[in-house]
Amino acid sequence: MTELADRRLLALAPNADRIQYRLDTLAKIGGLDGGGCCRLAFTDDDRRGRDLVASWMRDVGLDVVVDRIGNIVGVTPGRDGEAPIMMGSHIDTVATGGRYDGNLGVIAGLDVIETLKEAGISTDRPLALVVFSNEEGVRFQPDMMGSLVYAGALKLDEALAVTDGNGRTVAADLNAIGYLGDAPVGAVKPHAFVELHIEQGPVLDRAGEVLGVVENLQGIAWHELIIKGVSNHAGTTPMEMRHDAAFVAAEITTFVRRLASEIGRGQVATVGSIHLHPNLVNVIARDAKITVDLRHTDDALLAEAEHRLFAFIDNLAREEGVTIDRRELVRTQPVIFSPYVTGMIRQAAERRGMPVRSMTSGAGHDAQMISTIAPTAMIFIPSRDGISHNPREYTEPAHIAIGAQILLDTVVALANDHTGIQA
Amino acid sequence: MTELADRRLLALAPNADRIQYRLDTLAKIGGLDGGGCCRLAFTDDDRRGRDLVASWMRDVGLDVVVDRIGNIVGVTPGRDGEAPIMMGSHIDTVATGGRYDGNLGVIAGLDVIETLKEAGISTDRPLALVVFSNEEGVRFQPDMMGSLVYAGALKLDEALAVTDGNGRTVAADLNAIGYLGDAPVGAVKPHAFVELHIEQGPVLDRAGEVLGVVENLQGIAWHELIIKGVSNHAGTTPMEMRHDAAFVAAEITTFVRRLASEIGRGQVATVGSIHLHPNLVNVIARDAKITVDLRHTDDALLAEAEHRLFAFIDNLAREEGVTIDRRELVRTQPVIFSPYVTGMIRQAAERRGMPVRSMTSGAGHDAQMISTIAPTAMIFIPSRDGISHNPREYTEPAHIAIGAQILLDTVVALANDHTGIQA
Repeated sequence: MTELADRRLLALAPNADRIQYRLDTLAKIGGLDGGGCCRLAFTDDDRRGRDLVASWMRDVGLDVVVDRIGNIVGVTPGRDGEAPIMMGSHIDTVATGGRYDGNLGVIAGLDVIETLKEAGISTDRPLALVVFSNEEGVRFQPDMMGSLVYAGALKLDEALAVTDGNGRTVAADLNAIGYLGDAPVGAVKPHAFVELHIEQGPVLDRAGEVLGVVENLQGIAWHELIIKGVSNHAGTTPMEMRHDAAFVAAEITTFVRRLASEIGRGQVATVGSIHLHPNLVNVIARDAKITVDLRHTDDALLAEAEHRLFAFIDNLAREEGVTIDRRELVRTQPVIFSPYVTGMIRQAAERRGMPVRSMTSGAGHDAQMISTIAPTAMIFIPSRDGISHNPREYTEPAHIAIGAQILLDTVVALANDHTGIQA
Repeated sequence: MTELADRRLLALAPNADRIQYRLDTLAKIGGLDGGGCCRLAFTDDDRRGRDLVASWMRDVGLDVVVDRIGNIVGVTPGRDGEAPIMMGSHIDTVATGGRYDGNLGVIAGLDVIETLKEAGISTDRPLALVVFSNEEGVRFQPDMMGSLVYAGALKLDEALAVTDGNGRTVAADLNAIGYLGDAPVGAVKPHAFVELHIEQGPVLDRAGEVLGVVENLQGIAWHELIIKGVSNHAGTTPMEMRHDAAFVAAEITTFVRRLASEIGRGQVATVGSIHLHPNLVNVIARDAKITVDLRHTDDALLAEAEHRLFAFIDNLAREEGVTIDRRELVRTQPVIFSPYVTGMIRQAAERRGMPVRSMTSGAGHDAQMISTIAPTAMIFIPSRDGISHNPREYTEPAHIAIGAQILLDTVVALANDHTGIQA
């Protein structure tokens, strides 16, 4: 790159007001009191949101297609066959969602393309923007459905045949809203993929920092534990004769906290759900059902955490004279993002003199699916108080402007880079 | 007592078959599948049960009156004004009750009186049998209502005005079943009171023993704890940033077990109820509501247990950054039974060569109310597997025979004793 081009790029900034305007405009579709959004995938509000975003994509000159799982893919024109630098995210929300989750990655990506176009700057590689279908998975599971099919990890036919609680299929609902497209899924294979997203956690906000580069996503293990003890009178049953399912549930819950500390290095561990029976003040509980949520970015350590949990449970069951059955509800592998792309993000931040924090994502994102087919990473900006999936979700406009700037800088750098590539 | 009289008394045994027959006959009224009973106080089935038992009481020659709270009191005739040795219990049951709880104390007492009458033996003091109203307190609270009013610890007018969930009063329902009597409550003041009861706990059954002498009843402290933390994502929230209401609930639950062990000497402590919100696998719980049930026979130690619990809670709330509000649901004093009466029970067992275990009652009984107006104690016999308030409640006929024998021997000894009295 010439010095002139470099100076022009340094002067280039996305239009923060336009981003804010588009976030606000999109949030009115399915808008909730308090500023939130309910735009469930494949509903009429989803259609209205898609229509709006697709019209913006066409307005900035992208060639837009809809694929057979409803993903909306726009590519800068006239560069057929060249692998683009792709941005994007999703615009569907949970039932009590916010206006930033997903939407920001799409609208900021759009603004990157528009800003470059307005400045008359073209990049060596083309750019692309994608709106993935049904990331939230509220009515139709699995979540991240559009990116899963895009990456080839879920078969198109299977995804289309998924039904909701009322027996409606994905295919029928996609067709009903006019987004059962005819483009083949995944036809545009990106050279690299970058997703800008709100953190949906408290780390940046608490630290008073603005930028995170996401190095990895946690693997997740969910186990349901079913404890069967003996119900008895809380007054007449001596302590040493008890087989107390509530006590066993509590022992596991406190162990899980110690386990996180022992494994360390980012291990998180949560008992979020406890059901007791008969659940009365003066009766020793007969049954307890609890869930354990373990997450780690290192699969070997996650497996070690599971192993220690199971050993603890088996020993506790013997000591307390109860039975504990367990059922695996979810088990996913951690994802390591591309050091090439994370390096580009870090360099972009450095050029702007912005500190950037290396982070792990505790939530799932479309980028983790795309990471299996192209070098991928994510940029995080703060969520106030870590709140997300809630109408109170909020990110400061100044932070959005910084996130969009680093997205632009990273994408341009990736698009113009011809050095050692591939993560 | 002469040697002759002593030998006659040693040969005297209640009629075990008659006791069994009467237990079975009474259990058919409000009978449940599986052998249990539903005879809620002041219902039509209660009336039928009362009619049957009152007819048996008259058949054995007792002068029977019904007092103004519905207690049925029968006294051996012709001894007006003399303080009797009183036996008795209750015949109302919980909704899914057994046939032994309460009923045994009444029917065995009846058999003691009938056995003595058949043998032509009279005692120095008269004997009395009482059927107390509404011991279970299912529809109308407080429980032990009849004996509470009998002992003067609850005013008659207040008891009669108590309403059930439908606004019906005790007075109206007692009147409807024909048991709003006209005898003054507590007019017959016993010289001593003895209640035979099933243990309703596992101690005798597990130990393979048959007889218990109840020395005391536990004082009870029930506290509800309301924990308010912060709900957050189980993946994105680092362990050190959590204010996890489920963890706090679990810490208290495991502490309560340690507390019982530290206080010792019969301290029991139970968390039987835990409610979490939102109670989901992947969300750190915001709210928890738990109950703590503490019981001890020593009031100072019970207060010490409460004190340590509160200190632990206050410290934990600070450490975890949550608030914990507490509400006292129940607080009763322990009851110490009369050493005079427990001594008589122990002597009676010794004379029969029966080992007898000193016990604490973890459940409430009419005897604890009567203990405030007369020397009182209780005899326990085993509950199979400690099960009670359940159709599966069961006590072996051979154990019932032994219990009734010791009741008879104790009552006769009390009725004929003129040595150092008064506990």
